[in-house]
Amino acid sequence: MIGGVAAGMSAAAQAKRLDPSCEVVVLEKSPVVSYAACGLPYFVEGRVRELSSLIVHTPEYFRKERNIDVRTNSEVVEIAHSRREVVLSDRTAIHYDKLVLAMGAKLHAQAIEGSDADHVFRLQTLRDAQRIEKFLEERKPRSATIIGAGYIGLEMAEALRVRGLRVSVAQSSGEVLGRDDAKLTGIVAKHLEKFGVEINCSRRIARIDQSCGNMVIISAGFRPNVELALTAEIALGRTGAIAVSDGVETNLSGVYAAGDCAEHFHRVTGAPSWIPLGTTANKMGRIAGANAVGRRNRFAGIVGTSIVRVCGLGIGLTGLSERQARKAGFSPIAAQITHSERAGYFGGDSTTVELVADSQSGKLLGGSVIGEQGVKGRIDVIATALTNGMTVDEFEQLDLAYAPPFAPTWDALLIAAQQLGKLRN
Amino acid sequence: MIGGVAAGMSAAAQAKRLDPSCEVVVLEKSPVVSYAACGLPYFVEGRVRELSSLIVHTPEYFRKERNIDVRTNSEVVEIAHSRREVVLSDRTAIHYDKLVLAMGAKLHAQAIEGSDADHVFRLQTLRDAQRIEKFLEERKPRSATIIGAGYIGLEMAEALRVRGLRVSVAQSSGEVLGRDDAKLTGIVAKHLEKFGVEINCSRRIARIDQSCGNMVIISAGFRPNVELALTAEIALGRTGAIAVSDGVETNLSGVYAAGDCAEHFHRVTGAPSWIPLGTTANKMGRIAGANAVGRRNRFAGIVGTSIVRVCGLGIGLTGLSERQARKAGFSPIAAQITHSERAGYFGGDSTTVELVADSQSGKLLGGSVIGEQGVKGRIDVIATALTNGMTVDEFEQLDLAYAPPFAPTWDALLIAAQQLGKLRN
Repeated sequence: MIGGVAAGMSAAAQAKRLDPSCEVVVLEKSPVVSYAACGLPYFVEGRVRELSSLIVHTPEYFRKERNIDVRTNSEVVEIAHSRREVVLSDRTAIHYDKLVLAMGAKLHAQAIEGSDADHVFRLQTLRDAQRIEKFLEERKPRSATIIGAGYIGLEMAEALRVRGLRVSVAQSSGEVLGRDDAKLTGIVAKHLEKFGVEINCSRRIARIDQSCGNMVIISAGFRPNVELALTAEIALGRTGAIAVSDGVETNLSGVYAAGDCAEHFHRVTGAPSWIPLGTTANKMGRIAGANAVGRRNRFAGIVGTSIVRVCGLGIGLTGLSERQARKAGFSPIAAQITHSERAGYFGGDSTTVELVADSQSGKLLGGSVIGEQGVKGRIDVIATALTNGMTVDEFEQLDLAYAPPFAPTWDALLIAAQQLGKLRN
Repeated sequence: MIGGVAAGMSAAAQAKRLDPSCEVVVLEKSPVVSYAACGLPYFVEGRVRELSSLIVHTPEYFRKERNIDVRTNSEVVEIAHSRREVVLSDRTAIHYDKLVLAMGAKLHAQAIEGSDADHVFRLQTLRDAQRIEKFLEERKPRSATIIGAGYIGLEMAEALRVRGLRVSVAQSSGEVLGRDDAKLTGIVAKHLEKFGVEINCSRRIARIDQSCGNMVIISAGFRPNVELALTAEIALGRTGAIAVSDGVETNLSGVYAAGDCAEHFHRVTGAPSWIPLGTTANKMGRIAGANAVGRRNRFAGIVGTSIVRVCGLGIGLTGLSERQARKAGFSPIAAQITHSERAGYFGGDSTTVELVADSQSGKLLGGSVIGEQGVKGRIDVIATALTNGMTVDEFEQLDLAYAPPFAPTWDALLIAAQQLGKLRN
């Protein structure tokens, strides 16, 4: 395995579990493997006190307990597939029978002038988080600009706000969370402003200067890390990530790719997509590991589900937004409702649900859930419906759980489906 | 409509919405309609302060705002279908073109000696709740026995415990929540005892005496209310409830039945069942109302989803337990796991998930989720999977939402599916 985070370690563990006689080597260029990258913003926020608690397992653990040979500080610089060898930066060659590529994603920030200044940070590794923490402690910055309103950008906005900084988020695409959805962007922007975070969705920062404040976090420009794959003529797909079969194999026989460096088959569009997430990396990694030791497992694909907490507000997304659906060739209709999260007499917050469906087939295409409670559960129900190609009419009759402390009799999901159904009838 | 609670009022509202020219009459024998019966235990507990807040709409509202003729204190004593008439207790006859039966369920407690004593209560109506409240205030009972460990029984155990009583629950069937599931019963019993509620799952109370304490709540022996249907030779199914087609029509053309008085097609067993719940009543009511004015809607059936809060613990159930599945003719396998509810470094409670599948087909048959958080969302995902006939292998690859504040990277649902998958491979 090249890469020892989510996809690589999942592949290694699964290969070894299914075939204990197999020699499994993980090559990781950084000094640590198996860490919870998604936890880094919560370290900066102060909720996670020790960076070490984000390390799931050490290389020693894998060597001793799992008999997996994990080599850190081992950067692969070449894949010589004809010889079935990878070459490390110190020119050591390592033989493989099967290879799993799990190099992840990379931040391409070279287009931003001044991005090398010492008050400019990224947040991908434990080391990045340490550097940010040190800067906050020693320099006590009073203001920060975050470039990019994706998950990490918005989580960092909350984290730095909690640390007392004035925070401004700049996003060039006009939308947040990589979702082409004006309503969602409006709701998120309004909520951020309530928490004292300024957001500008049409601001492109070409040069970092004094207007960016005392600190800058770059969290835009993530791309699949494919340079190494190109050295071996491993084919990329249209998304720019490594193209894989449903068995997550690349165009080279016996070479698999999983996680953020690979394409992800999207069940709703029926086409490859690139939506880099830890959950997908883990699932693809398991399949790569199993197939590397002779199984023939298939990756069922994604429906594009994600969730993020932004200043206390939960935002869940799955499938396509209305505009994304139109671009993908559907004739979408959408309904958005806001409804009580629990029985009215029980009190509690409200939840906003949007459902998107194809007006011709009635099939659900996507949805979003926004609220303080119950967001994960409801977005997961929509994701499960998308996985099964449910229509709005079928969805409207789902037998969902009800009791006053947990939900109203008609769940917000079902009310949204009723509204959407009316647009069709 | 005969009956003006969940199913009856849903039917009335839907019929009127789809055909405003239709004359809709609701006959309700009690003085109130459209009340949230599920909220009654929370009134006794003290969380819901005013009984009036459980009344969703008054008869006046329906008359004035919806043009629905709601007649309270109107008990139907006979259905004369040949004349298309229902006869009230005062011998008034009312003509119908289409009839919706929504008489609900009834508590049959006659087998218990002493059940007419003035310290013995049921909890079905607002009046029942008022009587209980008055008794608690005036008589200040110090101990109570609850007969029946179904939803209402367990919710009342919590409510009376909160009110300071010593509470004991007696259940004759050996199981709680009507689920043939020894593990579940064990977990619930242990939890109740932690909250000072004594539970005896093999205690049949044939006679109410001093050993039952100062107060008794009977919440066992619910049966579909079908006496009236029998007067008109409306056919019952094997469950003892009114048999209906997938358009919720009875054996009499133009006579529909919905909610607790009717059978509910169970998608997992493929057979009629009787699982009286407000959600099902609302859905069937809507379909009855639509079909009464000429639509041809079909009820998709239930998967048996429910949730209850018992002394702070959420318990979600759907589909079949392992033993129920075996009795239904499947060859079930089951896996139960307990896993962190969120990313480990984020803290938070754990969730216990059980999944049941058929060992031959791999199809999921049921599941349970127990925990303090995230129970509704997870049981709803299993319910959605059951509705779609998903296999364990398909379920294991669901693209569920992940972020540290909401879930671990591998959701407890997926870990349970992995464990169950291992039993098959």
